[in-house]
Amino acid sequence: MKELFDKLQQESPLIHNITNYVTVNDCANLILAAGGFPVMADDSGEAADIVSISKALYINVGTLNQRTIPSMKIAGKRANEMGIPVVLDPVGMGASKLRNQTVNELLKEVRFSVIKGNVSEIRAIYENARTTSGVDVEEKDQITASNLPQAVRLAKDLAKQFKSVIVITGAVDIVTDGVRVCTISNGHPMMSKITGTGCMTGSLIATYGAVSSGELFAASCLAVSLMGLAGQRANAIMEERKEGTASMKRYLIDQIYHLDYANWKEGMRIEDYKK
Amino acid sequence: MKELFDKLQQESPLIHNITNYVTVNDCANLILAAGGFPVMADDSGEAADIVSISKALYINVGTLNQRTIPSMKIAGKRANEMGIPVVLDPVGMGASKLRNQTVNELLKEVRFSVIKGNVSEIRAIYENARTTSGVDVEEKDQITASNLPQAVRLAKDLAKQFKSVIVITGAVDIVTDGVRVCTISNGHPMMSKITGTGCMTGSLIATYGAVSSGELFAASCLAVSLMGLAGQRANAIMEERKEGTASMKRYLIDQIYHLDYANWKEGMRIEDYKK
Amino acid sequence: MKELFDKLQQESPLIHNITNYVTVNDCANLILAAGGFPVMADDSGEAADIVSISKALYINVGTLNQRTIPSMKIAGKRANEMGIPVVLDPVGMGASKLRNQTVNELLKEVRFSVIKGNVSEIRAIYENARTTSGVDVEEKDQITASNLPQAVRLAKDLAKQFKSVIVITGAVDIVTDGVRVCTISNGHPMMSKITGTGCMTGSLIATYGAVSSGELFAASCLAVSLMGLAGQRANAIMEERKEGTASMKRYLIDQIYHLDYANWKEGMRIEDYKK
Repeated sequence: MKELFDKLQQESPLIHNITNYVTVNDCANLILAAGGFPVMADDSGEAADIVSISKALYINVGTLNQRTIPSMKIAGKRANEMGIPVVLDPVGMGASKLRNQTVNELLKEVRFSVIKGNVSEIRAIYENARTTSGVDVEEKDQITASNLPQAVRLAKDLAKQFKSVIVITGAVDIVTDGVRVCTISNGHPMMSKITGTGCMTGSLIATYGAVSSGELFAASCLAVSLMGLAGQRANAIMEERKEGTASMKRYLIDQIYHLDYANWKEGMRIEDYKK
Repeated sequence: MKELFDKLQQESPLIHNITNYVTVNDCANLILAAGGFPVMADDSGEAADIVSISKALYINVGTLNQRTIPSMKIAGKRANEMGIPVVLDPVGMGASKLRNQTVNELLKEVRFSVIKGNVSEIRAIYENARTTSGVDVEEKDQITASNLPQAVRLAKDLAKQFKSVIVITGAVDIVTDGVRVCTISNGHPMMSKITGTGCMTGSLIATYGAVSSGELFAASCLAVSLMGLAGQRANAIMEERKEGTASMKRYLIDQIYHLDYANWKEGMRIEDYKK
Repeated sequence: MKELFDKLQQESPLIHNITNYVTVNDCANLILAAGGFPVMADDSGEAADIVSISKALYINVGTLNQRTIPSMKIAGKRANEMGIPVVLDPVGMGASKLRNQTVNELLKEVRFSVIKGNVSEIRAIYENARTTSGVDVEEKDQITASNLPQAVRLAKDLAKQFKSVIVITGAVDIVTDGVRVCTISNGHPMMSKITGTGCMTGSLIATYGAVSSGELFAASCLAVSLMGLAGQRANAIMEERKEGTASMKRYLIDQIYHLDYANWKEGMRIEDYKK
């Protein structure tokens, strides 16, 4: 993992983001804090040009609209041609027909290196994609000790089906490429009181993916654990100073700027998942 | 009012926001800090689906554009069908023909539970809506002791005409449902040096409206006074630390996260208006 | 320059911004912190109306899209009719055909008072605009002692061609109206780790331009040096407190709120350029 830290600082890769207008500023600042260089451009007339100079692509459907759906497809296809990582963040998958349909189209037309979502978003992808009956996942949004095995099985199935790394975020995060599976126990519940922690995690996966030489499983484990660790530390500072959620967001990005390999190694809680 | 505080924490309602891209992140973080759960989606293809899972709708015309005007109408009508609160923030009403026309169309096609604006925005609605002569309001943007009676009369007239709670924000805020009238003296002039304090107030009205069981007058009084109280406290911290406006914005959201019923009760300055 | 400081506080001019959705909130807060009043509106149906009540216009192509290109042209032409300053920020010029084509069209249809970019953006404008061979600028993004004379010559040529003040930002900034040339050595490398420092500089030029009575060279020198000085101070506070980039962004805007004429005079490093 040290190599990933070092390469990110040395190469400062350009990361293209087609994302929502709610948290886009936080994603840009997070990528910069980590060591990458963000670009946000969403017009179909330049999507291919911008991808052509980028090292990874992050697609987030948070404020999905019909103007940018073609841009997402063009960008994704160009990234696939170039062989650079493409990360999908299916925000709100399951919440509208437009979202379901768009994510399904994206999954058909673009190969995603990583698909990251919470358990309900990933389950919605699973249910849309399957045509025959499969694993059942409980109707809960949080992964717990009792539904972890089912969530892992769902993630592995999807990983094989889409040849993607699947990341399910929650109190415990799951990362799998269909064969390897790990769980990550970093993070803090207060992170859910700040908008954009999920989006920032997605753009950080793309950022580390850009320097991973195709090792997206490792890049995802690193990015997810690093973001969680930054959240723990940000929460600790916020609580000590008796501040609130806006302060915590600031500390979160500050921590991403400061955390190095040694801090990460000491604080990360990644475990191989054993059934 | 204690019930509103408690219900918001217990129910964490989903609040749908079709709003401008300038302050959307602050609105999302404020709703989270207060205890709600924000969703921002503005495509006409999913506006009805997203409203269908929401408990309140906030429409803000700040960065009005022709793509999202139909979304606002679809969302508003669906919210009306469901009987959930709809809050209108007619930002910049009076500043362009497009704004005037759009707000007029919205007012015809959607029933708004609350219309919140500064005195010039609310006056512009009044002047657009009336066909015969009515009350005169002075050409000043600030409510003062001398123009307060006229502003109250204008607000009451509009409240009756649109069957809405009318909120006029200023150094003194006015809230009326056409019968009851109160004035609120919380807030601090420095709040006008931060973009989005008005938008955040609007989304907070929607958030408390979602748990108000239709008591939008009470929800509006609570949200406006709470926002003002948070601003006073944020300003005090900022001044003590000799910081600036970006720090104050952070403290404002932090305060919304921290303020509870007891703090609010002690600090709120809501008074029944007596002519 | 004292007059510019004083007039901005007294007049609080309305500054219209057609800009990207990544850093738009920071630009709005920066304009407020400086003493102006921001408006962001990008629909072609109201662009002319909004410019008509404004004192300066800032056009930034950061998240360029086909919906807002006509708005930029309409707004620019209306501003030219009114004789108010128009500032162009050709973000990412050279990175896509759409960007190059759009900026070229803007330069043909609108007269810009100020064009501000980094050396590669300004060079891309130069190379697009010239039809015969001209000065050569090294293929480096940073202005150094060795390429400064060439960068100055390029800036002066462009200034004459477009009858604009040209601002090239970098470790050393160049400001020229084609005759007068100055260099500015304020700023800190950490500013490049925060998204939007360039956009904020552009909107600050428009803000001071609005009260400059046509003295855009002076307004640009002031805005660029003030922004750099704020960055130096923000970095010093951030380093002292061992914080990170999100904290530094906050201090940057706080500093713009606090810096007055005396502070600026003491800290500014503007020098006449002598070949």
